[in-house]
Amino acid sequence: MYIVGELINASRKVIGQAIKEQSSEYIRQIAREQEEAGADYIDVNAGIFVEEEAACLEWLVKNVQAAVDLPCCIDSPSAAALERGLAAHTKGIPMINSISLEKDRYDQVMSIVRNTDLRIVALCMSDKGMPQTRKERVTIADELVNKLVQNGVKIENIFLDPLVQPIGTNDSFGVEFIHAVEDIRRAFPEVHFMCGLSNISFGLPDRKYMNSIFAVMAIAKGLDGLMVNPLDKKMMANIIVAETLAGKDRSCKNYLKAFRKKKFEF
Amino acid sequence: MYIVGELINASRKVIGQAIKEQSSEYIRQIAREQEEAGADYIDVNAGIFVEEEAACLEWLVKNVQAAVDLPCCIDSPSAAALERGLAAHTKGIPMINSISLEKDRYDQVMSIVRNTDLRIVALCMSDKGMPQTRKERVTIADELVNKLVQNGVKIENIFLDPLVQPIGTNDSFGVEFIHAVEDIRRAFPEVHFMCGLSNISFGLPDRKYMNSIFAVMAIAKGLDGLMVNPLDKKMMANIIVAETLAGKDRSCKNYLKAFRKKKFEF
Repeated sequence: MYIVGELINASRKVIGQAIKEQSSEYIRQIAREQEEAGADYIDVNAGIFVEEEAACLEWLVKNVQAAVDLPCCIDSPSAAALERGLAAHTKGIPMINSISLEKDRYDQVMSIVRNTDLRIVALCMSDKGMPQTRKERVTIADELVNKLVQNGVKIENIFLDPLVQPIGTNDSFGVEFIHAVEDIRRAFPEVHFMCGLSNISFGLPDRKYMNSIFAVMAIAKGLDGLMVNPLDKKMMANIIVAETLAGKDRSCKNYLKAFRKKKFEF
Repeated sequence: MYIVGELINASRKVIGQAIKEQSSEYIRQIAREQEEAGADYIDVNAGIFVEEEAACLEWLVKNVQAAVDLPCCIDSPSAAALERGLAAHTKGIPMINSISLEKDRYDQVMSIVRNTDLRIVALCMSDKGMPQTRKERVTIADELVNKLVQNGVKIENIFLDPLVQPIGTNDSFGVEFIHAVEDIRRAFPEVHFMCGLSNISFGLPDRKYMNSIFAVMAIAKGLDGLMVNPLDKKMMANIIVAETLAGKDRSCKNYLKAFRKKKFEF
Protein backbone atom coordinates (compact mmCIF):
# COMPACT_ATOMS: atom_id res chain seq x y z
CA MET A 1 0.00 0.00 0.00
CA TYR A 2 1.29 3.43 -0.98
CA ILE A 3 0.25 6.07 1.54
CA VAL A 4 0.51 9.74 0.62
CA GLY A 5 0.14 12.02 3.65
CA GLU A 6 -2.26 14.78 2.69
CA LEU A 7 -1.86 17.24 5.54
CA ILE A 8 0.55 19.80 4.03
CA ASN A 9 -2.01 21.47 1.82
CA ALA A 10 -2.29 25.27 1.84
CA SER A 11 -6.05 25.06 1.52
CA ARG A 12 -6.01 23.91 5.16
CA LYS A 13 -6.06 27.05 7.27
CA VAL A 14 -3.18 26.07 9.57
CA ILE A 15 -0.93 25.29 6.63
CA GLY A 16 -1.83 28.42 4.67
CA GLN A 17 -1.02 30.43 7.77
CA ALA A 18 2.28 28.59 8.31
CA ILE A 19 3.32 29.36 4.74
CA LYS A 20 2.43 33.03 5.11
CA GLU A 21 4.41 33.23 8.32
CA GLN A 22 7.21 31.05 6.91
CA SER A 23 6.90 28.82 9.99
CA SER A 24 9.39 26.21 8.87
CA GLU A 25 9.26 24.32 12.13
CA TYR A 26 5.49 23.78 11.94
CA ILE A 27 5.71 22.37 8.40
CA ARG A 28 8.61 20.13 9.39
CA GLN A 29 6.71 18.89 12.42
CA ILE A 30 3.67 17.93 10.32
CA ALA A 31 5.97 16.17 7.85
CA ARG A 32 7.64 14.20 10.66
CA GLU A 33 4.33 13.23 12.24
CA GLN A 34 3.10 11.86 8.92
CA GLU A 35 6.33 9.94 8.38
CA GLU A 36 6.08 8.38 11.84
CA ALA A 37 2.45 7.44 11.24
CA GLY A 38 3.37 5.44 8.14
CA ALA A 39 3.28 7.77 5.12
CA ASP A 40 5.37 6.81 2.07
CA TYR A 41 5.13 10.23 0.40
CA ILE A 42 4.39 13.70 1.79
CA ASP A 43 2.02 15.73 -0.36
CA VAL A 44 2.81 19.44 -0.71
CA ASN A 45 0.24 21.80 -2.17
CA ALA A 46 0.37 25.60 -2.34
CA GLY A 47 -2.33 26.08 -4.97
CA ILE A 48 -4.19 28.84 -3.12
CA PHE A 49 -1.24 31.19 -3.44
CA VAL A 50 -1.74 31.46 -7.22
CA GLU A 51 0.99 33.91 -8.31
CA GLU A 52 3.36 32.81 -5.56
CA GLU A 53 2.52 29.11 -5.85
CA ALA A 54 5.91 28.18 -7.34
CA ALA A 55 7.89 29.97 -4.63
CA CYS A 56 5.69 28.54 -1.85
CA LEU A 57 5.95 25.03 -3.27
CA GLU A 58 9.74 25.31 -3.39
CA TRP A 59 9.75 26.44 0.24
CA LEU A 60 7.47 23.56 1.27
CA VAL A 61 9.57 20.95 -0.53
CA LYS A 62 12.76 22.30 1.06
CA ASN A 63 11.31 22.12 4.54
CA VAL A 64 9.76 18.69 4.11
CA GLN A 65 12.99 17.31 2.65
CA ALA A 66 14.93 18.76 5.57
CA ALA A 67 12.59 17.06 8.04
CA VAL A 68 12.01 13.54 6.72
CA ASP A 69 13.57 10.78 4.65
CA LEU A 70 10.58 10.48 2.32
CA PRO A 71 9.97 11.75 -1.19
CA CYS A 72 7.33 14.41 -1.74
CA CYS A 73 4.17 14.20 -3.76
CA ILE A 74 4.34 17.58 -5.50
CA ASP A 75 0.79 18.74 -5.98
CA SER A 76 0.16 21.24 -8.78
CA PRO A 77 -1.10 21.34 -12.36
CA SER A 78 1.40 24.09 -13.21
CA ALA A 79 4.64 23.23 -15.00
CA ALA A 80 6.40 26.26 -13.55
CA ALA A 81 5.46 25.35 -9.97
CA LEU A 82 6.33 21.68 -10.44
CA GLU A 83 9.73 22.68 -11.83
CA ARG A 84 10.57 24.82 -8.79
CA GLY A 85 9.37 22.10 -6.43
CA LEU A 86 11.39 19.42 -8.21
CA ALA A 87 14.57 21.52 -8.16
CA ALA A 88 14.37 21.62 -4.35
CA HIS A 89 13.73 17.87 -4.01
CA THR A 90 16.52 15.68 -2.65
CA LYS A 91 15.15 12.44 -1.15
CA GLY A 92 14.34 9.66 -3.60
CA ILE A 93 11.97 9.88 -6.56
CA PRO A 94 9.00 12.20 -6.06
CA MET A 95 5.45 11.78 -7.23
CA ILE A 96 3.75 14.43 -9.37
CA ASN A 97 0.12 15.17 -8.49
CA SER A 98 -1.41 15.26 -11.07
CA ILE A 99 -1.99 14.83 -14.77
CA SER A 100 -5.34 14.14 -16.48
CA LEU A 101 -6.77 13.93 -19.99
CA GLU A 102 -7.69 17.64 -19.87
CA LYS A 103 -5.60 19.00 -22.72
CA ASP A 104 -3.94 22.00 -21.01
CA ARG A 105 -3.16 20.07 -17.88
CA TYR A 106 -1.86 17.09 -19.83
CA ASP A 107 0.52 19.21 -21.88
CA GLN A 108 1.84 21.21 -18.92
CA VAL A 109 2.45 18.23 -16.67
CA MET A 110 3.80 16.07 -19.49
CA SER A 111 6.44 18.73 -20.19
CA ILE A 112 7.77 17.95 -16.70
CA VAL A 113 7.28 14.18 -16.63
CA ARG A 114 8.53 13.28 -20.10
CA ASN A 115 11.75 11.24 -20.10
CA THR A 116 11.93 11.03 -16.32
CA ASP A 117 11.33 8.27 -13.80
CA LEU A 118 8.89 10.43 -11.82
CA ARG A 119 5.81 8.79 -10.34
CA ILE A 120 2.66 10.41 -11.69
CA VAL A 121 -0.87 10.60 -10.30
CA ALA A 122 -3.28 10.41 -13.25
CA LEU A 123 -6.83 11.62 -12.66
CA CYS A 124 -9.56 9.84 -14.61
CA MET A 125 -10.89 13.15 -15.90
CA SER A 126 -11.13 14.64 -19.38
CA ASP A 127 -12.30 17.94 -20.87
CA LYS A 128 -15.77 16.37 -20.90
CA GLY A 129 -15.75 16.43 -17.09
CA MET A 130 -15.75 13.91 -14.23
CA PRO A 131 -16.78 10.29 -14.82
CA GLN A 132 -19.82 9.01 -12.93
CA THR A 133 -20.14 5.35 -13.88
CA ARG A 134 -17.82 2.39 -13.70
CA LYS A 135 -17.74 2.32 -17.50
CA GLU A 136 -16.88 6.01 -17.91
CA ARG A 137 -13.99 5.60 -15.44
CA VAL A 138 -12.64 2.56 -17.24
CA THR A 139 -12.88 4.26 -20.65
CA ILE A 140 -10.95 7.33 -19.45
CA ALA A 141 -8.41 5.18 -17.58
CA ASP A 142 -7.80 3.16 -20.70
CA GLU A 143 -7.19 6.24 -22.86
CA LEU A 144 -5.07 7.93 -20.20
CA VAL A 145 -2.82 4.94 -19.47
CA ASN A 146 -2.25 4.26 -23.15
CA LYS A 147 -1.44 7.91 -23.87
CA LEU A 148 1.00 8.13 -20.95
CA VAL A 149 2.76 4.93 -21.99
CA GLN A 150 2.97 6.18 -25.59
CA ASN A 151 4.60 9.33 -24.21
CA GLY A 152 7.26 7.25 -22.53
CA VAL A 153 5.89 6.99 -18.98
CA LYS A 154 6.61 3.57 -17.47
CA ILE A 155 3.34 1.85 -16.65
CA GLU A 156 4.47 1.05 -13.11
CA ASN A 157 5.01 4.77 -12.49
CA ILE A 158 1.34 5.57 -13.16
CA PHE A 159 -0.93 6.01 -10.11
CA LEU A 160 -4.52 6.23 -11.36
CA ASP A 161 -7.19 8.16 -9.46
CA PRO A 162 -10.66 6.94 -10.52
CA LEU A 163 -12.20 9.94 -8.68
CA VAL A 164 -14.63 9.34 -5.86
CA GLN A 165 -17.94 11.21 -5.91
CA PRO A 166 -20.35 11.72 -2.99
CA ILE A 167 -22.76 8.92 -2.20
CA GLY A 168 -25.08 11.58 -0.76
CA THR A 169 -25.87 12.72 -4.30
CA ASN A 170 -26.26 9.25 -5.86
CA ASP A 171 -26.66 5.89 -4.08
CA SER A 172 -24.54 4.11 -6.68
CA PHE A 173 -21.47 6.38 -6.57
CA GLY A 174 -19.70 4.11 -4.09
CA VAL A 175 -20.25 0.91 -5.96
CA GLU A 176 -19.49 2.46 -9.37
CA PHE A 177 -16.12 3.55 -7.97
CA ILE A 178 -15.10 0.24 -6.40
CA HIS A 179 -16.18 -1.73 -9.44
CA ALA A 180 -14.07 0.61 -11.59
CA VAL A 181 -11.07 -0.13 -9.34
CA GLU A 182 -11.58 -3.80 -10.01
CA ASP A 183 -11.95 -3.40 -13.77
CA ILE A 184 -8.85 -1.19 -13.98
CA ARG A 185 -6.85 -3.62 -11.82
CA ARG A 186 -7.78 -6.43 -14.19
CA ALA A 187 -7.04 -4.40 -17.36
CA PHE A 188 -3.71 -2.97 -16.12
CA PRO A 189 -2.19 -5.24 -13.45
CA GLU A 190 0.96 -3.07 -13.30
CA VAL A 191 -0.76 0.28 -12.75
CA HIS A 192 -1.10 1.61 -9.21
CA PHE A 193 -3.88 3.66 -7.64
CA MET A 194 -3.69 6.90 -5.72
CA CYS A 195 -6.76 8.75 -4.55
CA GLY A 196 -8.46 10.51 -1.73
CA LEU A 197 -11.65 8.91 -0.53
CA SER A 198 -13.19 11.58 1.63
CA ASN A 199 -15.47 12.90 -1.13
CA ILE A 200 -17.56 9.76 -0.70
CA SER A 201 -19.06 11.05 2.56
CA PHE A 202 -19.58 14.69 1.54
CA GLY A 203 -22.70 16.07 3.21
CA LEU A 204 -23.14 13.09 5.56
CA PRO A 205 -22.44 12.76 9.29
CA ASP A 206 -19.66 10.63 10.78
CA ARG A 207 -17.53 11.14 7.70
CA LYS A 208 -14.26 9.74 9.03
CA TYR A 209 -15.94 6.47 9.92
CA MET A 210 -17.58 6.13 6.51
CA ASN A 211 -14.31 7.04 4.74
CA SER A 212 -12.40 4.37 6.65
CA ILE A 213 -14.94 1.69 5.70
CA PHE A 214 -14.88 2.80 2.07
CA ALA A 215 -11.10 2.40 2.10
CA VAL A 216 -11.52 -1.23 3.18
CA MET A 217 -14.00 -1.90 0.37
CA ALA A 218 -11.71 -0.33 -2.23
CA ILE A 219 -8.75 -2.39 -0.96
CA ALA A 220 -10.89 -5.53 -1.30
CA LYS A 221 -11.32 -4.56 -4.95
CA GLY A 222 -7.60 -4.01 -5.61
CA LEU A 223 -6.82 -0.43 -4.55
CA ASP A 224 -3.13 -0.14 -3.57
CA GLY A 225 -2.66 3.58 -2.91
CA LEU A 226 -4.37 6.19 -0.78
CA MET A 227 -4.00 9.87 -0.12
CA VAL A 228 -5.07 10.19 3.49
CA ASN A 229 -4.42 11.82 6.83
CA PRO A 230 -1.96 9.29 8.29
CA LEU A 231 -2.73 10.63 11.77
CA ASP A 232 -6.29 9.26 11.45
CA LYS A 233 -5.76 6.15 13.56
CA LYS A 234 -8.96 4.37 12.58
CA MET A 235 -8.20 4.84 8.88
CA MET A 236 -4.62 3.60 9.22
CA ALA A 237 -5.66 0.60 11.34
CA ASN A 238 -8.37 -0.36 8.85
CA ILE A 239 -5.84 -0.17 6.02
CA ILE A 240 -3.42 -2.48 7.86
CA VAL A 241 -6.10 -5.09 8.58
CA ALA A 242 -7.56 -4.89 5.06
CA GLU A 243 -4.11 -5.40 3.55
CA THR A 244 -3.58 -8.46 5.75
CA LEU A 245 -6.93 -9.88 4.69
CA ALA A 246 -6.15 -9.07 1.04
CA GLY A 247 -3.19 -11.45 1.22
CA LYS A 248 -0.53 -8.73 1.22
CA ASP A 249 0.95 -9.36 4.65
CA ARG A 250 3.25 -12.34 4.85
CA SER A 251 2.49 -14.46 7.94
CA CYS A 252 0.36 -11.56 9.25
CA LYS A 253 3.56 -9.82 10.35
CA ASN A 254 2.27 -6.26 9.86
CA TYR A 255 -0.96 -7.16 11.60
CA LEU A 256 0.85 -8.60 14.62
CA LYS A 257 3.26 -5.66 14.72
CA ALA A 258 0.39 -3.16 14.62
CA PHE A 259 -1.35 -5.09 17.40
CA ARG A 260 1.78 -5.00 19.57
CA LYS A 261 2.17 -1.27 18.91
CA LYS A 262 -1.46 -0.85 20.04
CA LYS A 263 -2.49 0.62 16.68
CA PHE A 264 -5.88 -1.05 16.92
CA GLU A 265 -6.79 0.80 20.10
CA PHE A 266 -8.70 3.98 19.36
CA MET B 1 -28.43 -8.04 4.13
CA TYR B 2 -29.68 -11.16 5.89
CA ILE B 3 -28.46 -11.34 9.47
CA VAL B 4 -28.69 -14.61 11.40
CA GLY B 5 -28.11 -14.16 15.13
CA GLU B 6 -25.70 -16.87 16.23
CA LEU B 7 -25.90 -16.67 20.00
CA ILE B 8 -28.32 -19.50 20.83
CA ASN B 9 -25.85 -22.30 20.27
CA ALA B 10 -25.49 -25.00 22.91
CA SER B 11 -21.74 -25.17 22.33
CA ARG B 12 -21.63 -21.80 24.15
CA LYS B 13 -21.40 -22.61 27.84
CA VAL B 14 -24.17 -20.25 28.98
CA ILE B 15 -26.60 -21.68 26.43
CA GLY B 16 -25.71 -25.31 27.14
CA GLN B 17 -26.32 -24.58 30.81
CA ALA B 18 -29.63 -22.82 30.10
CA ILE B 19 -30.83 -25.83 28.11
CA LYS B 20 -29.85 -28.25 30.88
CA GLU B 21 -31.67 -26.11 33.44
CA GLN B 22 -34.55 -25.46 31.07
CA SER B 23 -34.15 -21.72 31.71
CA SER B 24 -36.76 -20.58 29.23
CA GLU B 25 -36.50 -16.95 30.24
CA TYR B 26 -32.77 -16.79 29.54
CA ILE B 27 -33.19 -18.21 26.03
CA ARG B 28 -36.09 -15.85 25.34
CA GLN B 29 -34.05 -12.88 26.55
CA ILE B 30 -31.15 -13.71 24.20
CA ALA B 31 -33.62 -14.11 21.35
CA ARG B 32 -35.18 -10.71 22.08
CA GLU B 33 -31.81 -8.99 22.36
CA GLN B 34 -30.79 -10.33 18.96
CA GLU B 35 -34.09 -9.25 17.41
CA GLU B 36 -33.70 -5.73 18.80
CA ALA B 37 -30.12 -5.55 17.52
CA GLY B 38 -31.26 -6.24 13.96
CA ALA B 39 -31.26 -10.03 13.39
CA ASP B 40 -33.53 -11.41 10.65
CA TYR B 41 -33.30 -15.02 11.83
CA ILE B 42 -32.42 -16.57 15.20
CA ASP B 43 -30.11 -19.57 14.93
CA VAL B 44 -30.84 -22.48 17.30
CA ASN B 45 -28.30 -25.25 17.76
CA ALA B 46 -28.36 -28.11 20.28
CA GLY B 47 -25.79 -30.34 18.59
CA ILE B 48 -23.76 -31.08 21.72
CA PHE B 49 -26.69 -32.94 23.29
CA VAL B 50 -26.39 -35.78 20.73
CA GLU B 51 -29.12 -38.22 21.80
CA GLU B 52 -31.35 -35.49 23.12
CA GLU B 53 -30.61 -33.03 20.31
CA ALA B 54 -34.08 -33.33 18.79
CA ALA B 55 -35.88 -32.66 22.06
CA CYS B 56 -33.57 -29.77 22.94
CA LEU B 57 -33.98 -28.22 19.51
CA GLU B 58 -37.77 -28.44 19.82
CA TRP B 59 -37.57 -26.72 23.22
CA LEU B 60 -35.29 -23.97 21.83
CA VAL B 61 -37.55 -23.32 18.84
CA LYS B 62 -40.61 -23.12 21.09
CA ASN B 63 -39.00 -20.60 23.38
CA VAL B 64 -37.54 -18.45 20.61
CA GLN B 65 -40.87 -18.42 18.79
CA ALA B 66 -42.62 -17.39 21.99
CA ALA B 67 -40.21 -14.48 22.45
CA VAL B 68 -39.76 -12.88 19.03
CA ASP B 69 -41.49 -12.31 15.70
CA LEU B 70 -38.65 -13.76 13.67
CA PRO B 71 -38.17 -17.14 11.99
CA CYS B 72 -35.51 -19.49 13.31
CA CYS B 73 -32.47 -20.79 11.54
CA ILE B 74 -32.65 -24.43 12.64
CA ASP B 75 -29.12 -25.69 12.92
CA SER B 76 -28.58 -29.43 12.62
CA PRO B 77 -27.50 -32.02 10.04
CA SER B 78 -29.97 -34.54 11.48
CA ALA B 79 -33.33 -35.11 9.76
CA ALA B 80 -34.93 -36.23 13.02
CA ALA B 81 -33.82 -33.12 14.90
CA LEU B 82 -34.81 -30.79 12.06
CA GLU B 83 -38.25 -32.40 11.95
CA ARG B 84 -38.88 -31.81 15.65
CA GLY B 85 -37.64 -28.24 15.40
CA LEU B 86 -39.81 -27.51 12.38
CA ALA B 87 -42.91 -28.91 14.04
CA ALA B 88 -42.52 -26.35 16.82
CA HIS B 89 -41.95 -23.42 14.43
CA THR B 90 -44.71 -20.85 14.03
CA LYS B 91 -43.35 -17.49 12.77
CA GLY B 92 -42.72 -17.20 9.04
CA ILE B 93 -40.51 -19.48 6.95
CA PRO B 94 -37.46 -20.86 8.77
CA MET B 95 -33.98 -21.43 7.43
CA ILE B 96 -32.34 -24.87 7.65
CA ASN B 97 -28.66 -24.87 8.61
CA SER B 98 -27.26 -26.76 6.73
CA ILE B 99 -26.90 -29.02 3.75
CA SER B 100 -23.65 -29.78 1.85
CA LEU B 101 -22.41 -32.10 -0.88
CA GLU B 102 -21.39 -34.69 1.71
CA LYS B 103 -23.61 -37.63 0.74
CA ASP B 104 -25.11 -38.56 4.13
CA ARG B 105 -25.76 -34.98 5.09
CA TYR B 106 -27.22 -34.17 1.69
CA ASP B 107 -29.67 -37.06 1.82
CA GLN B 108 -30.79 -36.43 5.42
CA VAL B 109 -31.33 -32.69 4.99
CA MET B 110 -32.88 -33.06 1.52
CA SER B 111 -35.49 -35.43 3.01
CA ILE B 112 -36.65 -32.41 5.06
CA VAL B 113 -36.26 -29.66 2.45
CA ARG B 114 -37.71 -31.40 -0.60
CA ASN B 115 -40.96 -29.86 -1.85
CA THR B 116 -40.95 -27.09 0.73
CA ASP B 117 -40.27 -23.36 0.59
CA LEU B 118 -37.69 -23.59 3.39
CA ARG B 119 -34.58 -21.44 3.15
CA ILE B 120 -31.46 -23.61 3.14
CA VAL B 121 -27.87 -22.85 4.08
CA ALA B 122 -25.63 -24.81 1.70
CA LEU B 123 -22.01 -25.34 2.77
CA CYS B 124 -19.43 -25.48 -0.01
CA MET B 125 -18.10 -28.79 1.29
CA SER B 126 -18.00 -32.30 -0.18
CA ASP B 127 -16.85 -35.71 0.98
CA LYS B 128 -13.43 -34.67 -0.33
CA GLY B 129 -13.22 -32.06 2.45
CA MET B 130 -13.14 -28.27 2.74
CA PRO B 131 -12.22 -26.09 -0.23
CA GLN B 132 -9.12 -23.91 0.05
CA THR B 133 -8.92 -21.96 -3.19
CA ARG B 134 -11.30 -19.65 -4.98
CA LYS B 135 -11.59 -22.22 -7.76
CA GLU B 136 -12.39 -25.14 -5.44
CA ARG B 137 -15.15 -23.10 -3.80
CA VAL B 138 -16.66 -22.12 -7.13
CA THR B 139 -16.56 -25.72 -8.40
CA ILE B 140 -18.35 -27.05 -5.32
CA ALA B 141 -20.85 -24.16 -5.32
CA ASP B 142 -21.67 -24.87 -8.94
CA GLU B 143 -22.31 -28.57 -8.32
CA LEU B 144 -24.26 -27.88 -5.12
CA VAL B 145 -26.54 -25.18 -6.54
CA ASN B 146 -27.31 -27.24 -9.62
CA LYS B 147 -28.07 -30.35 -7.56
CA LEU B 148 -30.35 -28.44 -5.19
CA VAL B 149 -32.23 -26.82 -8.05
CA GLN B 150 -32.61 -30.23 -9.76
CA ASN B 151 -34.08 -31.50 -6.49
CA GLY B 152 -36.71 -28.77 -6.57
CA VAL B 153 -35.15 -26.14 -4.28
CA LYS B 154 -35.86 -22.63 -5.55
CA ILE B 155 -32.60 -20.89 -6.33
CA GLU B 156 -33.55 -17.82 -4.29
CA ASN B 157 -33.99 -20.07 -1.22
CA ILE B 158 -30.34 -21.17 -1.36
CA PHE B 159 -27.90 -19.42 1.01
CA LEU B 160 -24.37 -20.52 0.08
CA ASP B 161 -21.58 -20.64 2.65
CA PRO B 162 -18.19 -20.57 0.85
CA LEU B 163 -16.48 -21.48 4.17
CA VAL B 164 -13.92 -19.14 5.64
CA GLN B 165 -10.57 -20.59 6.72
CA PRO B 166 -8.00 -18.98 9.04
CA ILE B 167 -5.62 -16.47 7.54
CA GLY B 168 -3.18 -17.41 10.28
CA THR B 169 -2.55 -20.71 8.50
CA ASN B 170 -2.32 -19.30 4.96
CA ASP B 171 -1.89 -15.67 3.88
CA SER B 172 -4.18 -16.14 0.90
CA PHE B 173 -7.19 -17.63 2.71
CA GLY B 174 -8.89 -14.24 3.00
CA VAL B 175 -8.50 -13.26 -0.59
CA GLU B 176 -9.42 -16.72 -1.91
CA PHE B 177 -12.68 -16.47 0.02
CA ILE B 178 -13.69 -12.97 -1.10
CA HIS B 179 -12.81 -13.70 -4.72
CA ALA B 180 -14.99 -16.81 -4.51
CA VAL B 181 -17.87 -14.67 -3.25
CA GLU B 182 -17.49 -12.49 -6.31
CA ASP B 183 -17.31 -15.41 -8.74
CA ILE B 184 -20.35 -17.09 -7.19
CA ARG B 185 -22.31 -13.80 -7.21
CA ARG B 186 -21.55 -13.45 -10.93
CA ALA B 187 -22.41 -17.08 -11.75
CA PHE B 188 -25.62 -17.18 -9.69
CA PRO B 189 -27.07 -13.68 -9.26
CA GLU B 190 -30.17 -15.08 -7.49
CA VAL B 191 -28.34 -17.12 -4.87
CA HIS B 192 -27.78 -15.63 -1.40
CA PHE B 193 -24.88 -16.07 0.99
CA MET B 194 -24.89 -17.06 4.64
CA CYS B 195 -21.73 -17.64 6.58
CA GLY B 196 -19.85 -16.98 9.74
CA LEU B 197 -16.63 -15.07 9.32
CA SER B 198 -14.92 -15.52 12.65
CA ASN B 199 -12.76 -18.44 11.47
CA ILE B 200 -10.72 -15.92 9.48
CA SER B 201 -9.02 -14.61 12.62
CA PHE B 202 -8.48 -17.94 14.40
CA GLY B 203 -5.24 -17.85 16.38
CA LEU B 204 -4.73 -14.08 15.99
CA PRO B 205 -5.24 -11.24 18.46
CA ASP B 206 -8.00 -8.61 18.20
CA ARG B 207 -10.26 -11.08 16.47
CA LYS B 208 -13.49 -9.06 16.62
CA TYR B 209 -11.84 -6.13 14.89
CA MET B 210 -10.40 -8.29 12.12
CA ASN B 211 -13.73 -10.11 11.66
CA SER B 212 -15.60 -6.82 11.28
CA ILE B 213 -13.17 -5.60 8.60
CA PHE B 214 -13.40 -8.93 6.78
CA ALA B 215 -17.19 -8.54 6.72
CA VAL B 216 -16.79 -5.18 4.95
CA MET B 217 -14.47 -6.70 2.34
CA ALA B 218 -16.86 -9.59 1.67
CA ILE B 219 -19.80 -7.17 1.31
CA ALA B 220 -17.75 -5.19 -1.23
CA LYS B 221 -17.48 -8.43 -3.20
CA GLY B 222 -21.22 -9.21 -3.09
CA LEU B 223 -21.88 -11.03 0.21
CA ASP B 224 -25.49 -10.49 1.32
CA GLY B 225 -25.85 -12.69 4.39
CA LEU B 226 -23.96 -13.13 7.64
CA MET B 227 -24.22 -15.32 10.71
CA VAL B 228 -22.96 -13.05 13.46
CA ASN B 229 -23.39 -11.89 17.02
CA PRO B 230 -25.81 -9.01 16.44
CA LEU B 231 -24.84 -7.58 19.83
CA ASP B 232 -21.34 -6.88 18.46
CA LYS B 233 -21.83 -3.16 17.83
CA LYS B 234 -18.72 -2.63 15.72
CA MET B 235 -19.66 -5.51 13.43
CA MET B 236 -23.24 -4.31 13.00
CA ALA B 237 -22.16 -0.71 12.39
CA ASN B 238 -19.60 -1.80 9.79
CA ILE B 239 -22.29 -3.86 8.03
CA ILE B 240 -24.64 -0.87 7.86
CA VAL B 241 -21.99 1.45 6.43
CA ALA B 242 -20.72 -1.16 3.97
CA GLU B 243 -24.26 -1.77 2.71
CA THR B 244 -24.73 1.97 2.19
CA LEU B 245 -21.47 2.16 0.26
CA ALA B 246 -22.42 -0.93 -1.75
CA GLY B 247 -25.42 0.98 -3.12
CA LYS B 248 -28.02 -0.93 -1.09
CA ASP B 249 -29.34 1.93 1.03
CA ARG B 250 -31.68 4.29 -0.80
CA SER B 251 -30.80 7.92 -0.09
CA CYS B 252 -28.54 6.71 2.75
CA LYS B 253 -31.64 6.28 4.93
CA ASN B 254 -30.31 3.37 6.98
CA TYR B 255 -27.01 5.14 7.43
CA LEU B 256 -28.68 8.32 8.69
CA LYS B 257 -31.03 6.34 10.93
CA ALA B 258 -28.11 4.41 12.44
CA PHE B 259 -26.28 7.69 13.00
CA ARG B 260 -29.27 9.19 14.80
CA LYS B 261 -29.61 6.06 16.92
CA LYS B 262 -25.92 6.47 17.83
CA LYS B 263 -25.06 3.05 16.41
CA PHE B 264 -21.68 4.34 15.21
CA GLU B 265 -20.56 5.20 18.73
CA PHE B 266 -18.63 2.36 20.33
